Amino acid sequence: MIRIPRDYIIYSFSRRYTARYRARPGDRIVFETLDALGGQIIDEGVSLESIDWSRVNPATGPLYVEGAEPGDTLVVEIESIEVSDRGVILVVPGFGALYDKSFRSRAKIVEIRNGVLLFNGVEIGVRPMVGVIGVAPEDGDIPTGTSGYHGGNMDVKLLSAGARVYLPVFVEGALLAIGDLHAVQADGELCVAAAEVSGEVQVKLDLIKGRRPRYPVIETPDRYAVITFGVDLDEAVYRASEEAVSILSRALNTGFEEAYMLSSLIVDIRVNQVVDPVKGVRAEIPKKFIRIDHLLYP
Amino acid sequence: MIRIPRDYIIYSFSRRYTARYRARPGDRIVFETLDALGGQIIDEGVSLESIDWSRVNPATGPLYVEGAEPGDTLVVEIESIEVSDRGVILVVPGFGALYDKSFRSRAKIVEIRNGVLLFNGVEIGVRPMVGVIGVAPEDGDIPTGTSGYHGGNMDVKLLSAGARVYLPVFVEGALLAIGDLHAVQADGELCVAAAEVSGEVQVKLDLIKGRRPRYPVIETPDRYAVITFGVDLDEAVYRASEEAVSILSRALNTGFEEAYMLSSLIVDIRVNQVVDPVKGVRAEIPKKFIRIDHLLYP
Repeated sequence: MIRIPRDYIIYSFSRRYTARYRARPGDRIVFETLDALGGQIIDEGVSLESIDWSRVNPATGPLYVEGAEPGDTLVVEIESIEVSDRGVILVVPGFGALYDKSFRSRAKIVEIRNGVLLFNGVEIGVRPMVGVIGVAPEDGDIPTGTSGYHGGNMDVKLLSAGARVYLPVFVEGALLAIGDLHAVQADGELCVAAAEVSGEVQVKLDLIKGRRPRYPVIETPDRYAVITFGVDLDEAVYRASEEAVSILSRALNTGFEEAYMLSSLIVDIRVNQVVDPVKGVRAEIPKKFIRIDHLLYP
Repeated sequence: MIRIPRDYIIYSFSRRYTARYRARPGDRIVFETLDALGGQIIDEGVSLESIDWSRVNPATGPLYVEGAEPGDTLVVEIESIEVSDRGVILVVPGFGALYDKSFRSRAKIVEIRNGVLLFNGVEIGVRPMVGVIGVAPEDGDIPTGTSGYHGGNMDVKLLSAGARVYLPVFVEGALLAIGDLHAVQADGELCVAAAEVSGEVQVKLDLIKGRRPRYPVIETPDRYAVITFGVDLDEAVYRASEEAVSILSRALNTGFEEAYMLSSLIVDIRVNQVVDPVKGVRAEIPKKFIRIDHLLYP
C-alpha cells in the first residue's frame, strides 16, 4: 500500500510538478489530506484576516501513474474515506451564494462523532466526500480551488466511498492529486464552505487506454454523472445538456432530435456548487440506458 | 366529489375570471386535463407549423375555494394522477436547453402501458406528475406557460401523487387551476417538453388562514421544497438560497451567519427546468430540521 503524507501538497494542477510518488494500475493508495483551510483554523476566535489565503485548498500529490498517457482515462475508485473528529465551516462577506449580503466573517468548529455532526445542538448525519480530485491539464497551472476538464475542486456530493471517477489524462503519468474532504455537504454548497475536514482517502487505480471522457465522469451504483462547469449556471447546464445528448445519441445510435427528446425524460440536471470560481452542475444518466463506452471518445 | 371537465380551461392565471366551480376546504376535486399541446398533436406526421400556439398550456379551472382570502395558504394534496396511454414529446428549433443547435422540428408519439413508456424500444418507468398548478396573482394575467410566486408552470418532478403543494393566496377564492400532466420528466426538462399527456388529477384541498409562504412550497414524505424562478438559473438560485437561509434562521432562532453555514450542509439546491420563460430551481430542506410554520409568514 502506498501512503502519501499530507505534507506533500500542491496548490495547482500542472505538468510542471515532478512526482515523488509512483503507482501502477491496480494499486491501492492512501492520500492523507489537509482540510481546505490548510489546517489554519484551530479555534473559532481566529481572525479570518490573519489567514494566509495562499495556503488554502491544498491537494495531496501529485501521484505519477505508470502507463498513463494523453488520451487515456484514469479511473479512481474511492474505496474509503476517514475524516477527522472536528470540522470547520466559515462564512466570509463577498463569498457564497449570498455574496452581496451584509454579514460578519465567522469560523465555526463542529464536532463529529459516531457519524453525526453537531451544529448548535442539531444532529446532521455525516456523509464524507472528496471535494478536490484531478489530474494535470494539458497546459498551464490551474489552481486547486477551481474545476475544469481536468477535475479539480468539483465539490460534488456523489464523491463518497464506492464512487468511481473517470478523469481524462492529458500528460504522461496523469499526475493525480486529491484533497478537500467534506464531512457533509448539500448540493449547492451555499455558504462557500462545507464541513471542512482533514482525513484520508483510500483509492484504487485503473487505466482505460486510448479513450477518454470529455468531462470528468462519476459512477455511482446506478448512474453516470457528467461533471461540467461554467462562469454561470446556465453555461454549465448548456455543457451538461450538450454532452448528455451526445452520449444518448451514441448509446441509442440515433439522431440529435431523438436523443434531445429522450434527455428530457431520463437525464437529471443537478447542481454541484454555485460558489467556486466556476459554477458546477452534473448530468446524471441512469446506467440502465448507457454503458461507460458511450462516455469515452478516441 | 367535484369533477371539473377538461373543456373548462384557462390560458392565464388572473383574478378577472369568474369561477364556475366552487369547493370548500376538505373537499376532494378531480381536474380532468388536456395535454400541454391542447391535444392538437394526434400523429407524428403533423406539421408543427400548423399548430395553433395560442391553444397550448391549457390549465383546467379556475376553481373558487370558499373561505380563501389574500394572505392565506391554499394547501393542495395530490392524491392520485391518471394519465392517458399515449404521450407526445416534441422538439422545436430555438427552444429547450440547446436552443441554438440546428435541428428539425419533430413530434413523437409514445405508448404508455403498465407503468412503462416505450421510447424507440427503450423502457422508461412512468412517474406521473403535474406540470402546471397555480392560483390567480394579485394583478394582471400571467400566462399558464410560465411560473412565479403564484405557482403556474413549475414543471417540478416532485409534483407526483402524495405530494402536497402550499400556494400563497392573493385573491378571494384563490382561483386554483391545474394542467400539463407529464407521464415522466427528468430534472431540467431539457428538450422543452416532457412526455406530455392528458389525464386526471384528484386533489384534496385545505386552507391555512392568515399566513402564507413567499414562494410555492412542495412537501414530500421527507422534505419541503421552496420553488423559485429567475430570468436565469443564477437568479433562481439566489432566491432559493435567500429564502432557505431565512427559513433556517427562523427554525433555529439564529442569526444570518449560522443559518448560512447550516444551509451549506443540509439545503439541496436542485434544478426543476431550464427551458420555460423563466427558469426554475428548488431549495430542498429535510423535514427533520424545520416545520411548515417556518415557511409561512403573516
